[in-house]
This record gives sequence, structure tokens and C-alpha cells, in this order.
Amino acid sequence: MERREFMKTAAVAGVGAAAATASTLATPAIAQGVMEWRMVTAWPKGLPGVYSSAERVAKRIEDASGGRLKIKVFGAGEIVPGLQVFDAVSNGTAELGHDTPYYHTSKSKATAFFTTVPFGMTQVEHNAWINMAGGQALWEELYAPFNLQPFMCGNTGVQMGGWFRKEIQAPEDFKGLKFRMPGMGAEVLKKLGANVVLLPGGEVFAALQSGAIDGTEWTGPYNDLSMGFYKVAPNYYWPGIHEPSAAMQLIINKEKFAALPKDLQAIIAAAAGEENMMGGSEFFERSGTALETLVRDHGVKLRQFPRSVLVALGNAAGEVLQETLDNGDAITKKVATHFLKTRTNLIRWTRIADQGFANARQLEFKYPTGE
Amino acid sequence: MERREFMKTAAVAGVGAAAATASTLATPAIAQGVMEWRMVTAWPKGLPGVYSSAERVAKRIEDASGGRLKIKVFGAGEIVPGLQVFDAVSNGTAELGHDTPYYHTSKSKATAFFTTVPFGMTQVEHNAWINMAGGQALWEELYAPFNLQPFMCGNTGVQMGGWFRKEIQAPEDFKGLKFRMPGMGAEVLKKLGANVVLLPGGEVFAALQSGAIDGTEWTGPYNDLSMGFYKVAPNYYWPGIHEPSAAMQLIINKEKFAALPKDLQAIIAAAAGEENMMGGSEFFERSGTALETLVRDHGVKLRQFPRSVLVALGNAAGEVLQETLDNGDAITKKVATHFLKTRTNLIRWTRIADQGFANARQLEFKYPTGE
Repeated sequence: MERREFMKTAAVAGVGAAAATASTLATPAIAQGVMEWRMVTAWPKGLPGVYSSAERVAKRIEDASGGRLKIKVFGAGEIVPGLQVFDAVSNGTAELGHDTPYYHTSKSKATAFFTTVPFGMTQVEHNAWINMAGGQALWEELYAPFNLQPFMCGNTGVQMGGWFRKEIQAPEDFKGLKFRMPGMGAEVLKKLGANVVLLPGGEVFAALQSGAIDGTEWTGPYNDLSMGFYKVAPNYYWPGIHEPSAAMQLIINKEKFAALPKDLQAIIAAAAGEENMMGGSEFFERSGTALETLVRDHGVKLRQFPRSVLVALGNAAGEVLQETLDNGDAITKKVATHFLKTRTNLIRWTRIADQGFANARQLEFKYPTGE
Repeated sequence: MERREFMKTAAVAGVGAAAATASTLATPAIAQGVMEWRMVTAWPKGLPGVYSSAERVAKRIEDASGGRLKIKVFGAGEIVPGLQVFDAVSNGTAELGHDTPYYHTSKSKATAFFTTVPFGMTQVEHNAWINMAGGQALWEELYAPFNLQPFMCGNTGVQMGGWFRKEIQAPEDFKGLKFRMPGMGAEVLKKLGANVVLLPGGEVFAALQSGAIDGTEWTGPYNDLSMGFYKVAPNYYWPGIHEPSAAMQLIINKEKFAALPKDLQAIIAAAAGEENMMGGSEFFERSGTALETLVRDHGVKLRQFPRSVLVALGNAAGEVLQETLDNGDAITKKVATHFLKTRTNLIRWTRIADQGFANARQLEFKYPTGE
């Protein structure tokens, strides 16, 4: 019975979903007490930190609904390719998706702000913007024409500056550098004269090894460890300024979400909120350990970008953001302006709170380490 | 069927519970398929950031349970005084409580680590410890003898160093200073020679005004604004090192929690997790705005503790932590060691991630502000 209902849902969803369809579908399933929904993701099955997040939130929704809403999670390519999650949920091929907003800048440049922008916000600042400063309402406005209901659902935290074959000592060292970097970060590096390329993950190592590229951005120690880049590009630079956090999203087909009973809507929102914290914690905790492994066991050279490089990157990022403000469509201008105003306000607090404290903690004094 | 099962479970939960009062109250409501639980809090009714958190999580649980679990929130003193939340939930006078662990160091010194300790962890580090490094299991071990199930549920973030009538220019300025400060922070200041006093919130302003005290710690701009301390002690110091985050807790009577159907258990866990992020966002977002108001409209002098003071505070905090390790009971030693080891690991990542990024962002470059 369950299975038959599910097949019917899947079949109709495949045809491509309107409001009437969604509510018609929902009704019989609810009457029998069980719905089966599909979550497509942008992640290779099992990828730590992101696929794990998708699985955790799916399980929480299932448990909290007492099994009334079962969710099957799919890796990239199982139903649709990883970059088509947005479209698949929008048109009802799947009810839910897990990926990150800035994969979809081709729909609107404004999506970038809901993941991260160069020199933008940290994770706690981004959460504060979305949860308490009006970010969520703007996000829903942006996604409404795409028939999507978004929630934050995980965060990589600050990403690393990337892997470089040679040291970076001045802004000029980016001139002609062949570097893999996606998104707005790529635009920033181009302003410094870098020759930016985009390569799928599976081709990056070989390109580094052959010298086809001089370096690559990836994520952070937790994901980077398994990629093996340290074998051919041992200079690992911090701080990453191109993605000072990266929010993952849970997206739900808006018509189907609206047709759910209120308690299931509340369960999905709560589970996504919980997972936003959990996913953030997973990346954060594993990164410390992975970084130690990289440095201690694999001879990685952890290097800080020189001040002159950071200032040059900052000015380049400022230009990229200004161009986005100047040339963006109406919704992009609206989102960018709101994001930048909120950022200005939040930085004021970060400076004396998290940043002020962390800098004080780094002074020299005697404090037990637990060893 | 579901409903009958639920009623049976709920009835058993009523019988199993310690407090005759609570179960007697709950029983008639349960007979109609609805449970009514009571949440006692340590907060004056309506206190921004904390009472608001308690209300938000209660509403989320009620909504996500489809109204099966209704929760009435009580302010401090309405059922029990604010500092008796722990006991009231432990003995079943109330089913739920919202306060913060370190209010209960008289039960065990180890509770402090689940709120915050001087020079300890930031909010994201604390979340990473609890969620992903084993902190939650230790917390449950600590609370099991008290018949309590804990969840993180809100965070004030980094607190301010406090309000001072006079400037602090050297560690010696703490000698003989009459200062209001609770918890381990008080022990730290005592090591610098301060004359530390504890006063209830309602008496602090008068004590400052009369000169009975020279300064006071409170929370951060969001809560401090309404207290008016700036009128008599205009020097507002950062960074606060005594409480580099402060986790709020949702505690549930463990027997009653265990007797709940699994879906309601999952709903409570998810709602608490979501609220941990939400409460953190509320404090974070409001702090930036409140700080601006304090400085712009009330002439507050925002001052940074000098380096020599921070180092002295660091060494004093190190001594306090070492004494806790040396003299604590078994569970305190276990928790403190685990906390300190995890802290050492996480700081390694914070330094090059959130802290490294925030410091780079503060360099001079041109970036749009949204104005």
C-alpha cells in the first residue's frame, strides 16, 4: 500500500507538479498515515559533512513525524545530476533537495548571498542575518517564483584559501597563476590577474600533478584531506576570504510544502534549524582534527596570506560586490544592499565579541590543555 | 489507533512520574489526547533573549506535535524561584525547565563547563564540543543522577567585560576594586585582588550609583541597554573573557521524557537544537544594534582591556581551571579534562578559520557598506 502510493506520487511528480496535483497527492497518503518523499542532493553519496547532513535531517523528520513522512535521500546523479537539484525540486521531480544556493547564480545572482560572498559574513553572522535581521523573508521572496521553500541546513564554516604549488608572497604572484576557483571568488582572483579555471572535482588532482593548474581552492581540512592535493601542492593557505562560511540549504517544493499539515511543516522547519547547527558543528569539529593530520602526518605547509595579499584581495572583492550592486537586477540589488547593511552592523559586534575574545585568548598565558 | 497508543503512553508517564502534583495536573488533559506540560524558567517574564527563547521553543514543540504536547511557560517566581528550576524539573514539580547549567555549581562544579568557563570556548566551539566531540554524552552522564535530560537551547554569545566607573589601565587597578561578578569569573578577579560581591540584578544599579560597588558585569549590549548602568559607570570594557559564550539549557524530567512516544522525544530534541541556533542569532543580531545605541545615544565609552590586563586575567583563569582539575570530584575532573582537550583542538581551527578571517576582514580596503 505504502509502496503503491509512493509510486503514484513519484510518477505524477515526474510529470511535473502543480498545486492541485500536490494537494491531491498529499491527501490519500495522509489518510493512510504515511507519505514517502524523495530528497535529491548535490553530493556524492556519503560525502562527509554534506551528504551526512542530508541524511541526518531526513532521519530527524521521519522520527519526529512518527514515520508519517518518510524521506529517501539520493546522491548526485541518482535521480538528477548534482547541479539540477534546484530545478528538480522546483518542478516536483523530487519533493526535497539539499545543496547550496550559489550553485544557482544562473537563475539569479542574488542566490550567492544566501551561501556566501567574498569577505562577507561568518557563520554566526549569516545565521543572525537569516534568522533575525530579515534574511529569511528576502530568501523566500527570491525563491517564490521558483516554487521553492528554503531553509538553512548546514554550514562548512570558513573555507581555506586553497592549495598552491608555490608560495604566495605578494599580490603580483597571482598574475598569470592558473587556479581553480568557482563563483564570486573566481571574479576576485581574475581582478588580480589570475587565470581562473573551473574543473570538476575528479579532474583537479591530475591537473595539479601535470602542472595544468598551479593551485586549487577546495573546502577545508575535513573535505580536503581525502582529496590528496597536499601531495602535489603542499602550501595550504589561510585565511580563506572567498567563502567565509557556506550555508547549505534544504529546499522543498513550495506547493507540496504548503499542502502539508501544519505540524509537518513545523517539524521540517525545526529539523532544518537543528541540522543547520549540527552540520556546522560537524565541519567545525572535524576540521581541527583533519588539520592536525595534514600538518603532522602529511607535511603540509600551513601558510598565512601576507597582509599585502589580503588587502589586494579585499579591494578586488569590494569591486566585485560593487559591480553586483551596480549591475544586478532588482532582486539582486535588494538582497545585496540588505546583506551589506546587515554585515556592517554585525561586524561591529563581531569585532569586540568573538574576534576580540579569540584574539585575547591567543596572548601568552598559562592555561591547562587537558593533556 | 495512534491516538489511543499515545493516550496509553501518556497515562503511564503520569504514573511513573515522581511529583504527584504534576501528574495530577496533567492527567485530565491527557484524557482528551492532549498533554499539558509546564516549563519553569530562571528568567523574569519577557526578558529579551532568554525568556523569548523559552517561549519560542515551547511554541515550536506545540506546533510540531500538532497540539498534542502543549507547554505553558512560567517566569521566575511564578511556580518556583529562578534558581530552583533544576530541582523543580528534577523532582517533577515541572516537566521542563529553561535556565543555564552553571546556576547549579552547588550540585556539581562540572555544570560550569556546559555553560562557559573563563577563556574557554566560543559559541561555535561549544556547539562543536557538545554535538560532535562527545560533550552531549558527558552532559547526560552528569545529569542522570539528577533525573534530567539536557539539551542546549540558546546562547548569549561572548559577554562584555562589564561596566566600570573608572578606567582600567593595568592589572593593579583590580586591587581592592569592588566588583559584581558571579561564577568562575569571580574567582578569576579575586586572584587579581578584586573585592568581588554578588548582588541580585535589581540592586546593582543602586549599588553602582551609591558607590557601594565600582563596577559590574552583566551580559552584553542587548540585555545591558535596559539596565541603565551607563548612567553611572560609563566605561564599557571588551573583550569579556569570563564568559566567552553562555549556553542556555532546556532540561526535561528524565522519567517523563523517557515515557514520551519516540516522535515527541524527537520533536523536543529538534526544537531545542533549532532554538539553540535561534537564541544565539537573537543575541548576536540585537547586540550590534544595541551597542550602536549605547555609544551613539548614551555616550558610552567603549574601551578595550589593555594587553597586560588580558594576560593577567588569562593567567588567573588558568590557575582557576587548574584548581578545578586538581580539586574537583571524579565527574568534574572527567568533564574538565575532556573540555580542555577539545578546546585545545578546536582553537587550532578557530585561529585560522573564524578568527583568521575576521582579522583579515578588518584590514583597510574598500568594500561597499550597503549605505
